[in-house]
Amino acid sequence: MTTLFKYSSREYCHENTIVQLSDIKIGGPRIVIIAGPCTVESQENLMATAKVVKVNGANILRGGAFKTRTSPDSFQGMGEDGLKLLSEVRQEFLLPIVTEVIDANDIPLISEYADMLQVGSRNMQNTALLKALGKTNLPIILKRGFGCTVKEWLAAADYILAGGNSQVVLCERGIRTFEDSTRFSLDILSVPVVKQLSHLPLIVDPSHAAGQASYVPAVAKAAIAAGADGLLIEVNISPENALVDGKQALDEAAFAKLIPELHKIARAVGRLWCEPLR
Amino acid sequence: MTTLFKYSSREYCHENTIVQLSDIKIGGPRIVIIAGPCTVESQENLMATAKVVKVNGANILRGGAFKTRTSPDSFQGMGEDGLKLLSEVRQEFLLPIVTEVIDANDIPLISEYADMLQVGSRNMQNTALLKALGKTNLPIILKRGFGCTVKEWLAAADYILAGGNSQVVLCERGIRTFEDSTRFSLDILSVPVVKQLSHLPLIVDPSHAAGQASYVPAVAKAAIAAGADGLLIEVNISPENALVDGKQALDEAAFAKLIPELHKIARAVGRLWCEPLR
Amino acid sequence: MTTLFKYSSREYCHENTIVQLSDIKIGGPRIVIIAGPCTVESQENLMATAKVVKVNGANILRGGAFKTRTSPDSFQGMGEDGLKLLSEVRQEFLLPIVTEVIDANDIPLISEYADMLQVGSRNMQNTALLKALGKTNLPIILKRGFGCTVKEWLAAADYILAGGNSQVVLCERGIRTFEDSTRFSLDILSVPVVKQLSHLPLIVDPSHAAGQASYVPAVAKAAIAAGADGLLIEVNISPENALVDGKQALDEAAFAKLIPELHKIARAVGRLWCEPLR
Amino acid sequence: MTTLFKYSSREYCHENTIVQLSDIKIGGPRIVIIAGPCTVESQENLMATAKVVKVNGANILRGGAFKTRTSPDSFQGMGEDGLKLLSEVRQEFLLPIVTEVIDANDIPLISEYADMLQVGSRNMQNTALLKALGKTNLPIILKRGFGCTVKEWLAAADYILAGGNSQVVLCERGIRTFEDSTRFSLDILSVPVVKQLSHLPLIVDPSHAAGQASYVPAVAKAAIAAGADGLLIEVNISPENALVDGKQALDEAAFAKLIPELHKIARAVGRLWCEPLR
Repeated sequence: MTTLFKYSSREYCHENTIVQLSDIKIGGPRIVIIAGPCTVESQENLMATAKVVKVNGANILRGGAFKTRTSPDSFQGMGEDGLKLLSEVRQEFLLPIVTEVIDANDIPLISEYADMLQVGSRNMQNTALLKALGKTNLPIILKRGFGCTVKEWLAAADYILAGGNSQVVLCERGIRTFEDSTRFSLDILSVPVVKQLSHLPLIVDPSHAAGQASYVPAVAKAAIAAGADGLLIEVNISPENALVDGKQALDEAAFAKLIPELHKIARAVGRLWCEPLR
Repeated sequence: MTTLFKYSSREYCHENTIVQLSDIKIGGPRIVIIAGPCTVESQENLMATAKVVKVNGANILRGGAFKTRTSPDSFQGMGEDGLKLLSEVRQEFLLPIVTEVIDANDIPLISEYADMLQVGSRNMQNTALLKALGKTNLPIILKRGFGCTVKEWLAAADYILAGGNSQVVLCERGIRTFEDSTRFSLDILSVPVVKQLSHLPLIVDPSHAAGQASYVPAVAKAAIAAGADGLLIEVNISPENALVDGKQALDEAAFAKLIPELHKIARAVGRLWCEPLR
Repeated sequence: MTTLFKYSSREYCHENTIVQLSDIKIGGPRIVIIAGPCTVESQENLMATAKVVKVNGANILRGGAFKTRTSPDSFQGMGEDGLKLLSEVRQEFLLPIVTEVIDANDIPLISEYADMLQVGSRNMQNTALLKALGKTNLPIILKRGFGCTVKEWLAAADYILAGGNSQVVLCERGIRTFEDSTRFSLDILSVPVVKQLSHLPLIVDPSHAAGQASYVPAVAKAAIAAGADGLLIEVNISPENALVDGKQALDEAAFAKLIPELHKIARAVGRLWCEPLR
Repeated sequence: MTTLFKYSSREYCHENTIVQLSDIKIGGPRIVIIAGPCTVESQENLMATAKVVKVNGANILRGGAFKTRTSPDSFQGMGEDGLKLLSEVRQEFLLPIVTEVIDANDIPLISEYADMLQVGSRNMQNTALLKALGKTNLPIILKRGFGCTVKEWLAAADYILAGGNSQVVLCERGIRTFEDSTRFSLDILSVPVVKQLSHLPLIVDPSHAAGQASYVPAVAKAAIAAGADGLLIEVNISPENALVDGKQALDEAAFAKLIPELHKIARAVGRLWCEPLR
């Protein structure tokens, strides 16, 4: 299936694509750290978590306002109220914001508040959504479907690229396997595979794959060592109170300890750090 | 995770749900056969295939007009023109029509032409689409996501049921595994598992799992023997010319041979046949 | 990889191989039922279970004396004492015996007591054992490795066939997948795939795949409908007391109910039953 | 299943186990590199490859003399002649030797020539072999079965430990998944999981997982970053002529380039290098 993907292929574009948000470049020499809570749950928690994220030198704040949850009775996110809180944080800490989009009809609303949109794993092959995003010029994080191959993921990116939007960042977040000691299996080999097959930037989400905070630092470091352009990490100042996925979020101490370790790995593979460490 | 699904559970509704289209009941004693081409590609092909489907005693015609394809450069379906062809067939052969919906915005249009809507495997966790379908009263086929567990599939059904639409038919169509001699691995155990956990009707699509026509009859028979309420089978009078998935479609001779074999299995498990065989 | 397997291929031998134990033929028109406890645990249990197996018309008794258990602290089987109990049963009920071999050095001992040897899933690629079995003329059941493809399974059969022993029966017993409501996922498509690619007889073990007795009858029926030549079913008169895998064993009532149901499916697919039902 | 493994658990032994071969310690602060051809194929190739391995600072030479191949018609290794060649290399380059054992009966012979024995992925649950190795005092590399969970792997190690042999090094080498752009999926999360659950040293084999040399350096670096104690890498001076797995072997230039890169990663995670780089 040599033709499964085209616009995302190295053959189509030899040079690496750089995705830019204000002065942050994803896919260039600098490692980019995107961090924050899985889901926006309260102003207090978001502000305090954003401060930890900012102080430790992360570049972009993540936080979900519209969530794809497995069950309809689970908390579906705060919606526009969540977007407004994210917007406050953006002003307060001068951090760009990335948030998930789950419905093409929400794109205009979310675009008012967010700098970057994320397509979640469960929507990787929601082609109606992908096509709609292709008609915008917003930077997009496209998470890998947990049941999808690397080639299908690149084909999904093609849906956005084909529409004229070249600002796509791929995000490896683990695949479904039989292994039962972690939530998913992080496919670390996808890093060199994507780098060989595609010109798009690639970041790694170690949190959803691990499903447990204690496993996150090891694979965050592994991802940078393997050549990823950045990380998407769940951080929460009070993980034990989070409504969604608290078990896998790093708390302040763990995040503050991880960042300088990542710095060392980045330097060891010849990458620049996103900004000077404190 | 005992609470992953609720509205689709046996605890929530002890009696089996019957999904009804005109005089066809899915989930009752009769086995229901849904057959047709993967995708509507021309009037000639559709008419001739529909005739084969009708003559051999199938109950519902399937045919895609809006398709979720892996690549944006693949044929995406004929859209409304395809729906019109399906509508002609419905009148000509008095066969109810089921067709895929991939975008909530298309629901009003498709509802004008189709009797039943199908959510494809790649959209099983497209919760925006599921919620929109929950607000209709249309019968829905919900295909299992190929990377999703049975419990997640029932939770996806919950999104439709929670909205007030109880007319959901589950469709097992194979899951992703390492086995490479077939396209997917049909999870035959999902039949007794779903029947134990849920009140919803369950049909099986042997065609997408097999990926090769020669393997379809064996697993079609297996599905009925295991307790499925029906089958969704790809049939095409000229599989070798199909733009999409021709390799797995049964031709006229194979379909005509299979139907009486299925009849025997249905009788062996105490099920009635959908209608008298010719 | 067209050359992954050879001696087990249809190209190498066009006619179906029939494996024979006294007057029982596996791979011919008759369905063969092999049943019994997972592991021989006491004379009393074995005798009573064997009676149930015999009375309900099964053809061969299974029972493990040497077991491959995941942990070294788990019960490893009764060894030669277990073989002696199996031998008593053989005389009492005139039932041929199949038991597992896990070490080539045990072959001479086990051969004194058993009519047929079984290679378990965890030893499917233990080539030293396979080669040793190839030098015997004993009928062998070769279970599929739960992490192995159909083609690797046929290549494993080649190790026995290449040594000169053509008496190999393949046994599908489920593969490892992400699905968590069953112990393994029974790969029902392997039935038509093996029948197309190989001349060897194929039976199905629904018990290990299901991991739960209530799911066994549905997939046992599915296996016969799909074209399997027989079944390997765990039966135990007191499953709740079994040291090994009791949860998945059928009790007397469930086994007695299943057999006539299988009879009907066998007749529906044109197979003869192994012997007249009572 | 909290009791699936015991002797390999942190609860059983709080301190990290160090496995020692002459003056090389696996599991201590130093990273250990084991490199060499998949299979010993000729004196000339082995000598030249060993020189590359030695000169670049690897600590142990690997090379298979007895191989578990998928098909019986594939090259099964040179047997004792291969061991003799390995022994010559040991004397010439003062490199300890690790080689695979596939049959308990071969242990005395192989022990005469090798310093360390390897149990391959396909034999991870060959309990007869594991028990026999438990009665020796030889250092053992236990590769993870490609269809087995981390907990089953630790339970397999228990078979060796329970016999009295504590010298076990675990080796992650990739698991079976649906991803088709690599041979296996390297489970990088198994590194922190094993380090949390077990006291045993852990190395990673990036070559078998990748199946392609160009992907090996990225995941070799990732493994060290994640906390592995060493690497098992296929190196071959003429990969294009190898009878077995040449596609995934690093050639001299690739190996010479990788070693100093690994050195940097090791330093970044606070590990010492096995010996001074030239």
